[in-house]
Amino acid sequence: MAPGRRYGVGVGPGDPELMTLKAARILREAPVLAFFRKKGRPGNGRTIVEGYLHAAVIEEALTYPLTIEVPAEDPVYQSALPAFYDASAERLAAHLDAGRGVAAISEGDPFFYGSFMPIFHRLSPRYTCEVVPGVTGMSGCWTRAGTPITYGDDVLTVVPGTLDRAALTERLRRTDAAVIMKLGRTLPKVRAVLEELGLIGRAVYVERGTMRDEKVTPLDTRDPGAEAPYFSMIVVPGRGRLL
Amino acid sequence: MAPGRRYGVGVGPGDPELMTLKAARILREAPVLAFFRKKGRPGNGRTIVEGYLHAAVIEEALTYPLTIEVPAEDPVYQSALPAFYDASAERLAAHLDAGRGVAAISEGDPFFYGSFMPIFHRLSPRYTCEVVPGVTGMSGCWTRAGTPITYGDDVLTVVPGTLDRAALTERLRRTDAAVIMKLGRTLPKVRAVLEELGLIGRAVYVERGTMRDEKVTPLDTRDPGAEAPYFSMIVVPGRGRLL
Repeated sequence: MAPGRRYGVGVGPGDPELMTLKAARILREAPVLAFFRKKGRPGNGRTIVEGYLHAAVIEEALTYPLTIEVPAEDPVYQSALPAFYDASAERLAAHLDAGRGVAAISEGDPFFYGSFMPIFHRLSPRYTCEVVPGVTGMSGCWTRAGTPITYGDDVLTVVPGTLDRAALTERLRRTDAAVIMKLGRTLPKVRAVLEELGLIGRAVYVERGTMRDEKVTPLDTRDPGAEAPYFSMIVVPGRGRLL
Repeated sequence: MAPGRRYGVGVGPGDPELMTLKAARILREAPVLAFFRKKGRPGNGRTIVEGYLHAAVIEEALTYPLTIEVPAEDPVYQSALPAFYDASAERLAAHLDAGRGVAAISEGDPFFYGSFMPIFHRLSPRYTCEVVPGVTGMSGCWTRAGTPITYGDDVLTVVPGTLDRAALTERLRRTDAAVIMKLGRTLPKVRAVLEELGLIGRAVYVERGTMRDEKVTPLDTRDPGAEAPYFSMIVVPGRGRLL
C-alpha cells in the first residue's frame, strides 16, 4: 500500500481568516489532523482551524508532557521531550503506513521556529512531506501594530528573548528593524536592552496579535511589572528610505 | 458621503493558493483593485490574483515610470518616483472620496518591504487603512528550499543585497540564519561575502519561489556568472537546537 500523504501546514498567526487557501483545502481533504497542545488546553493551532475541519477527521492530539514550567536546560526536559517526539512521530507513521494522509499543523509558518520541526526531522527520512507556508506570527504582530516593519534597504533582525543580555545587545545594536520573540520571563531583560540602545521609544508590544483578545501598546507606556505570555512579541520598526 | 474602505492586501509569494482567505474575500468585495506594474508587463501582484477577481472590478494599474534601469541614487529616479507616487495616491483618493472601496495589493506581506508603502504613507493621514498580512516571499522561498530556516534559539537576519560589502559582511558574520533579498546585480558581491564567511555551503538560491517557473539550487553549484532576477533570494538555514 502506498503511504498516505504527509503535510506540514502553517495555519497563520491566529485569526482563522489569515489561513491560506491551500491550508484550508488540505484541512478539508486530509483524513488525519495532528496538533500539539499543553495538558488541559485545546491547543493554539487546533483553535485556529476549529471551523475548517471535515466531519470524518481523525484527530491526533499530541499532548506535551511538560512545557515552560521546566527550563529547556533541565535534564528532565532533555529526556522527556525527545521520548515524546519519538512516540508522536510513530503515531503519525502508523496512519501514513495505513495509507491515511496526515496534516500536521503549526501556528504561523512551519519552517520558521515551527513547533513541528522535531517530528518533521524524525519522519523525513521515511516519508516525503509537503510543507505549506503560512503568515508568520510576526507578520500578524507588526500588521496589528499598524506600522511597516521594513522598507527600502532596512535590515531586519529576529531574535529570541532567551539570548543572554550581552548577545541580545550585540545583535540589536546595529540593526534597522527588530522583532523580539519568546518574551515571557525574559521581558525585563529585553526591556533593559532596548532602553540601553535607545530603541524603547520605537518599540511596540503586541500580545496575541490578530486574535480576539489581542493587546497592542507602545512598550514604554506599558507597566514594566506586567507579565508577558508566550504569544507576545516586541516589534521595532525600521526607518528606511521612502520616496 | 462616507469614503470607501481602504485595504492594503498581501497576496503572498506567488502561488495564488498561498493567498489568505481574507485576501480572497476582499478581492471578491472591493470595487477597485490597485496594483503596480512595470511598463509593458501585467504586474506580478496582478498575475497572482488573476483568478480571484469579480466581473465588475475597476482596475487601477499604476505603471512605474522607471524601475531598476535607473539606480535609486540617480536624480532622475529621485524626482520621477515621488511624482508618480503622488499622482497614484490621488487616483486612489478619487475612488475613496466617491465612496468606492479600494484594495491595493502587494506581493508577499504589505508591511515587509511592501511596494505600496509610499502610497500607504501618502493616504494614511486622510483615510484609515486595513492591512491584511500575507505569506512573505521569503517564507515561500525557504519552504521551496525544503529546509527549516530557524528553530530553537536561532537568530535570523534579513538583509538587502544592496548593502555595501563591509556592511553585508558585518551583518552576516554572527547570525545563525540569513535571508538575502534584492539580488539582481548584487549577486557576485553577495556570493563573495558568503564565501568569505564560510556560509556558501549552507546557502540555497531560490528564484521565483512557489511560482510556476521556480528554480531552487545550492548556491555553490550554481553558475557564478548567471544573472539573478528581482524575484530571487538566498536563504541560509540556521542550525538551532532540536530535541
